[in-house]
Amino acid sequence: MAPPQDGKAAEVKEESVPQRPISDVVFIIAMKKEASPLVEKFQLTEESNSLFPKGVPWVRYSGKYKDLNINIVSPGKDIVLGVDSVGTVSASLITYASIQALQPDLIINAGTAGGFKAKGACIGDVYLASDVAFHDRRIPIPIGKLSTGDSLDMCPHDETAIIANDATVKDMEGAAVAYVADLLRTPAIFLKAVTDIVDGDRPTTEEFLENLAAVTAALDQAATRVVDFINGKNPLEL
Amino acid sequence: MAPPQDGKAAEVKEESVPQRPISDVVFIIAMKKEASPLVEKFQLTEESNSLFPKGVPWVRYSGKYKDLNINIVSPGKDIVLGVDSVGTVSASLITYASIQALQPDLIINAGTAGGFKAKGACIGDVYLASDVAFHDRRIPIPIGKLSTGDSLDMCPHDETAIIANDATVKDMEGAAVAYVADLLRTPAIFLKAVTDIVDGDRPTTEEFLENLAAVTAALDQAATRVVDFINGKNPLEL
Repeated sequence: MAPPQDGKAAEVKEESVPQRPISDVVFIIAMKKEASPLVEKFQLTEESNSLFPKGVPWVRYSGKYKDLNINIVSPGKDIVLGVDSVGTVSASLITYASIQALQPDLIINAGTAGGFKAKGACIGDVYLASDVAFHDRRIPIPIGKLSTGDSLDMCPHDETAIIANDATVKDMEGAAVAYVADLLRTPAIFLKAVTDIVDGDRPTTEEFLENLAAVTAALDQAATRVVDFINGKNPLEL
Repeated sequence: MAPPQDGKAAEVKEESVPQRPISDVVFIIAMKKEASPLVEKFQLTEESNSLFPKGVPWVRYSGKYKDLNINIVSPGKDIVLGVDSVGTVSASLITYASIQALQPDLIINAGTAGGFKAKGACIGDVYLASDVAFHDRRIPIPIGKLSTGDSLDMCPHDETAIIANDATVKDMEGAAVAYVADLLRTPAIFLKAVTDIVDGDRPTTEEFLENLAAVTAALDQAATRVVDFINGKNPLEL
């Protein structure tokens, strides 16, 4: 049996990063309330001809904005629980399926997050994090390290790990999206808008719900700036 | 735009559960040490013609055992860390990709787990759990509720949730495999062999490593009994 050529194939693939401008962008967005303003902003339409397996609740919106084909993919409502399917498992699945189906040039995981005031985060701040170091200071959005877990709250064990991660923001999907994008060699960036202060004295749920609408508007603006910035650029220019 | 026919399609699909015997079984197994004895037992061979995307470390073994086409799929070594890719994200991805590629009649998630002595679990016990209630007492393996999380240890917050789940065994993949199998309407069963006592007084890591080899042999025997049991039966008979 011939040895697998994976190493070599991977090398070739990496050398062949396209020199053409980015054309296909997939947003991975966990909640409908986070996705809706962007769907409207980019004038996307919901696709009923699903690229995904029958019966999954995943939702895809697509359309053209400037020179870009933009897709927004959300996990949709959990079939049993009727709430948005947040968290790492759904995020990893829709990232995987979207990359397989759409072969995008760039993944953007956008969403709300908890922020750490000890790191200077305030409600409404939007942070740009990048797992693959191709963000750019020409996008005037603060940079912060992101730490991901499957809970909205933070138990003491999580806190220790988050401090070790030196995180400014904490979400429930980013690291899973990063893992899958990396596995399938697709560039990814992470835009996270702060809805609640993790190390503050108010309950997370209360702050989160209170700020969701306003902060989602800030996220919408930041996402538009990012998209305007990448329009016409090739991946190596980012 | 016509309304989506998903509800109807799903109904038709569920009515059309095959009346023929189970023919394709996919084992989802997180660790190489857990998979190896079964690969040997069923005389499977590693497939180099991958059904999976280029560059992923996922490993598939396949072969014929009695009347069954058996595949064992493992997440393989993490490309960066060099260790088995345990946990929910990898488990959900390989379950998704395996169902898409192989359309199995049955998923079996087999692996090691922590057990709760308060629920009667002992090292080496193998539990059969089923998310979809088609196990049968004719398989003389104890039944126990399974609770899944992404950590080997158990912090106090996790403990509260596990007690609420009334779990006998605790693993790191089962619920993710169940979620994906359910999403794609594929029956799944869960075989979990106890390597360590979560509510005992010895450190989990120490017990886990000490018992891994012996317990994996018990898992191997139980998996063989399950496979022998399902051979020739159709899914509704289980």
